[in-house]
Amino acid sequence: MIAITLPDGSVKQFESGVTPMDVAISISEGFARNVISASFNDTTIETSTPITEDGSLVLFTWRDEKGKQAFWHSTAHIMAQALEELYSGIKLTIGPAIENGFYYDVDLVDNTISEKDLPTIEAKMLEIARGKHEFILRESSKAAALAYYKDLGNEYKVELIENLEDGTITFCDHDTFTDLCRGGHIPNTGIVKAIKLMSIAGAYWRGDEKNKQLTRIYGISFPKQKELKEYLALLEEAKKRDHRKLGKELELFTFSKKVGQGLPLWMPKGAALRERLENFLKKAQKKAGYDMVISPHIGHKELYITSGHYEKYGADSFQAIKTPNEGEEFLLKPMNCPHHCEMFNSKPWSYKDLPVRFAEFGTVYRYEQSGELHGLTRVRGFTQDDAHIFCTPDQLDEEFKKVIDLVLYVFGSLGFEDFTAQVSLRDPENPEKYIGSDENWEKAEKAILNATIEKGLNYTVETGEAAFYGPKLDFIVRDALGRKWQLGTIQVDYNLPERFELEYKGSDNEMHRPVMIHRAPFGSMERFIAILLEHTGGNFPLWLMPEQVSILCLSEKYEKYAQKVLNVLENHEIRALIDNRSETIGKKIREAEMKKIPYMLILGEQEENNGTISVRKHSEGDLGSMTVETFSELINDEINKNKKEFIV
Amino acid sequence: MIAITLPDGSVKQFESGVTPMDVAISISEGFARNVISASFNDTTIETSTPITEDGSLVLFTWRDEKGKQAFWHSTAHIMAQALEELYSGIKLTIGPAIENGFYYDVDLVDNTISEKDLPTIEAKMLEIARGKHEFILRESSKAAALAYYKDLGNEYKVELIENLEDGTITFCDHDTFTDLCRGGHIPNTGIVKAIKLMSIAGAYWRGDEKNKQLTRIYGISFPKQKELKEYLALLEEAKKRDHRKLGKELELFTFSKKVGQGLPLWMPKGAALRERLENFLKKAQKKAGYDMVISPHIGHKELYITSGHYEKYGADSFQAIKTPNEGEEFLLKPMNCPHHCEMFNSKPWSYKDLPVRFAEFGTVYRYEQSGELHGLTRVRGFTQDDAHIFCTPDQLDEEFKKVIDLVLYVFGSLGFEDFTAQVSLRDPENPEKYIGSDENWEKAEKAILNATIEKGLNYTVETGEAAFYGPKLDFIVRDALGRKWQLGTIQVDYNLPERFELEYKGSDNEMHRPVMIHRAPFGSMERFIAILLEHTGGNFPLWLMPEQVSILCLSEKYEKYAQKVLNVLENHEIRALIDNRSETIGKKIREAEMKKIPYMLILGEQEENNGTISVRKHSEGDLGSMTVETFSELINDEINKNKKEFIV
Repeated sequence: MIAITLPDGSVKQFESGVTPMDVAISISEGFARNVISASFNDTTIETSTPITEDGSLVLFTWRDEKGKQAFWHSTAHIMAQALEELYSGIKLTIGPAIENGFYYDVDLVDNTISEKDLPTIEAKMLEIARGKHEFILRESSKAAALAYYKDLGNEYKVELIENLEDGTITFCDHDTFTDLCRGGHIPNTGIVKAIKLMSIAGAYWRGDEKNKQLTRIYGISFPKQKELKEYLALLEEAKKRDHRKLGKELELFTFSKKVGQGLPLWMPKGAALRERLENFLKKAQKKAGYDMVISPHIGHKELYITSGHYEKYGADSFQAIKTPNEGEEFLLKPMNCPHHCEMFNSKPWSYKDLPVRFAEFGTVYRYEQSGELHGLTRVRGFTQDDAHIFCTPDQLDEEFKKVIDLVLYVFGSLGFEDFTAQVSLRDPENPEKYIGSDENWEKAEKAILNATIEKGLNYTVETGEAAFYGPKLDFIVRDALGRKWQLGTIQVDYNLPERFELEYKGSDNEMHRPVMIHRAPFGSMERFIAILLEHTGGNFPLWLMPEQVSILCLSEKYEKYAQKVLNVLENHEIRALIDNRSETIGKKIREAEMKKIPYMLILGEQEENNGTISVRKHSEGDLGSMTVETFSELINDEINKNKKEFIV
Repeated sequence: MIAITLPDGSVKQFESGVTPMDVAISISEGFARNVISASFNDTTIETSTPITEDGSLVLFTWRDEKGKQAFWHSTAHIMAQALEELYSGIKLTIGPAIENGFYYDVDLVDNTISEKDLPTIEAKMLEIARGKHEFILRESSKAAALAYYKDLGNEYKVELIENLEDGTITFCDHDTFTDLCRGGHIPNTGIVKAIKLMSIAGAYWRGDEKNKQLTRIYGISFPKQKELKEYLALLEEAKKRDHRKLGKELELFTFSKKVGQGLPLWMPKGAALRERLENFLKKAQKKAGYDMVISPHIGHKELYITSGHYEKYGADSFQAIKTPNEGEEFLLKPMNCPHHCEMFNSKPWSYKDLPVRFAEFGTVYRYEQSGELHGLTRVRGFTQDDAHIFCTPDQLDEEFKKVIDLVLYVFGSLGFEDFTAQVSLRDPENPEKYIGSDENWEKAEKAILNATIEKGLNYTVETGEAAFYGPKLDFIVRDALGRKWQLGTIQVDYNLPERFELEYKGSDNEMHRPVMIHRAPFGSMERFIAILLEHTGGNFPLWLMPEQVSILCLSEKYEKYAQKVLNVLENHEIRALIDNRSETIGKKIREAEMKKIPYMLILGEQEENNGTISVRKHSEGDLGSMTVETFSELINDEINKNKKEFIV
């Protein structure tokens, strides 16, 4: 008999050789029908793998991330079978599950596949799926595995196997198909009910452009047709909300090949939006006791040697900037912390001065391969809403809580209601991977956990995910389309204070080392605005809107009255523009709707005579006629409802 | 007889061979006594040089810049004589007048001179001066000049003469001394009444570090002892106001060797000061129809090849930033205009959209040799209050005037009352040096001159000083110590619109090229703040002051009351801090005075009981007791008196 521990902590006795599916059935038949994958002692196994020792078992359904991974990886096997049946002589390489679906990289040899062939492959896959073929994992000796693929002339699999150790090699068989595979499948092909192949792309073998280019086919699959339909609808909606598309339509930002890829140029409306967000955070930060500072966008190489960044990232970063004669080398700054450390070091500090909180909207530059760049979410230059808190170890707890308050205030004001906190702690089994004393680590980890719990955050703990310099707390936000984004971060750092020899005089008159907290509620302005665009579809909270009101004249005759209306709005600090082009009112309304302008005021003879305005709300329609004063109050009420003050 | 035209336009007849001094005497004996130098047809001549043809004569006194230059250059001759008499075997090289005084570079051969020898040299110089020796310019053949210096073994003068053309070589004799010299002296040594040798420095022959290092002695001289005294007092005052000293004392900015020389780090108070200045300008710019934009701090090399900057400055600039694999090259941006041109190019424009005004507080990086760096006035990274106006040629006139209004508003709000405008036009004799059609140049030059005159500016015209791409207007400000600084600039540009192929659709439905105006009222934030610091000695206008009020508690008992006072001040948007350290009130006042804090509020038992505060004004003293409300109104009145709104 063996003892199996389940996630709820309960321990059950089974006969040795019991499979995860047996355990599932022992819990309930209904539950077992939904189980598609399992892990034993944190290692993924098949639902049919016999268990022969005591340990912890987790059973996954489609709702679990790991269940989806097994589902999609299994579908990749089905696709590989379909491809082999449809295209003779092709060579399979690798076919993993990814965040949304799966892909398989194939050397097509003499065949070609284009987008129009995808429905045929899908049909063949569904046919295979309907056969309800079991996935069976089978061990193989290295010699047998090599012989098999050498015989097939598949040099890719041969290369993969050569890098594996004998005794660890497995194949997965289903129906007539077999593939080198380390496991993690669903019970049988029949569970896959809906399949969509998304696209075809080129991909180099092992990601190296010196190697042969393979054909990568992307797909996704679901246990129900309805779920595929929903997913495709979501994709359609995401396309509409693509921040690159909206950014162009709303004239927020642009890119120029001449300026360089991945370097956003903020057009007037985008720059104003950024400034509003920055001012919003500045105001809250001022209340929270932060001081703004300004540092340059380059730093001497020496600075990054001191910080340790040069050794770690130098070779993969933007290369050094040399001066004409003096043999100096500067680097584009990839982060603001080393500069802030030097600023802290520019004067002596007493414990009475701490915490010191240096904040900067600091633009940093990090090299990304051009193929990795994507709109504002993956750029080469971005502005962090950065701050570094220098405090005594005893202040850490309190400071951490204050930062959480600030992050929650930011999320709340911007309509991100659905988020989780991820606490990353060190791996207690590998203390040598981390810098700083045990005592400090314990203090810091406790401070983070305490703060997280006290603030009532919905959180997960990731052991071993801490940075080498300290534990951290990341905020994972779920947007309106259910996609997850990592936004704000709070990190404790023992490393830089050590490397920069930061000091303050304690109440004992001795010199002590402060602790540093890095934090950025937005993360980066670019990324945040991109996510906000996709989350809101461009319908920002009213207080953020570049243009809150559009004044539409029925004809040029009413321009003077429009100017009067505009003046009243501006006195109420409402942002408005007059559209007095000689276009039809219908066209003006349509354009204002497309530009997501929250309110339209229509002015004609009747309005001018009565001293009123006709109000239309974006995507809602007519709100009737009122005075500009009434309307201004209405707008400002709406703003104040959403944008609360930060209370320390 | 010859006809001499004088600066007032009058023409007088003289016999050929008349000297400038003769002409001076013919005007008035009294005037002639003050004449110390002259120019004929724009060439400097001696006051004793015979004039033998018709032409324009200008006579200079000590009050004229050119008079001072002759005075100081002549004093360099006197110093050279004194050095030769005191130190045997030395070799003279060159000895020009500079902005304030003169220097002479000497090869001391076997001698040494230190600061403590300067009084001896001064005494010898004054002894020579008292001899009232005439300066006499004498022509020499190249052969004779070479022979003279070869005989003396002076390889420096030989090298200088070898580069001169025969027939243009002159010597200047006075007393027993002679020197190779092209002229521009005062009548005699006796006019020099006061001399101060300032310092000794090393200087390479011809400024090339591969050459021998010479000894440079700096000095200054005056026609009256009193003027020397005033000058030295001014220097003393300038030292006190040195922005590097004040910047450190007021904790505005710092530098770090690790971050890099010439890269300012703005500490909290400095960053807040900068932000206030920026917000002040932003507000005015918004009224004036500018749109803020944001561009990155690097640009692809291609961008600067297009703009022409790479060809012109590439080799002498910060060198290119390479990417790890992709063979790309980026440059730190030395100016914002190419980025703004690309932003203009990101969408189509109609004449109805113009003028477009893109403004950015854009941080730029320009390589300066480390030896040239000086505090905030000569840096390697600085933030321009930049803007580029894209307008039709017909709008140029109006736009130029609007920019002048903005510059005048900025100067007025910051206490710069004394300034002149310098209009730089092209050299009509060398039209090939300039880009753009004659018609456009005429239009632009007329626009600048019209605007300058219409706005009633005190201006000078510098023909031939225009940039190759267009004429410009620079503002030269005189600070409280009488020193001149170039601040704001307005430049017309036909070049970049051409190079970036900027276009708009005209009312004729054809595509046209816009004109660009570059402008920066502050110039650079760093330089402006440096000058403002030296101009005000750190006593900024009240609205700019980092800390307007310091609340000084007589003892810790009054902290609670101090907090109440602070709250009232903050509600009135007054920046204040509480000083509740356990120091004596005397020390607290002295420190607040040193920090230039405009107002001190002293709180003790009496104040708390009466609900009042005792007010002290910086450098003025006690203002008596009043309520916080009354005090807040007082301050805000003072602010509003100085800081007017910008009216378009």
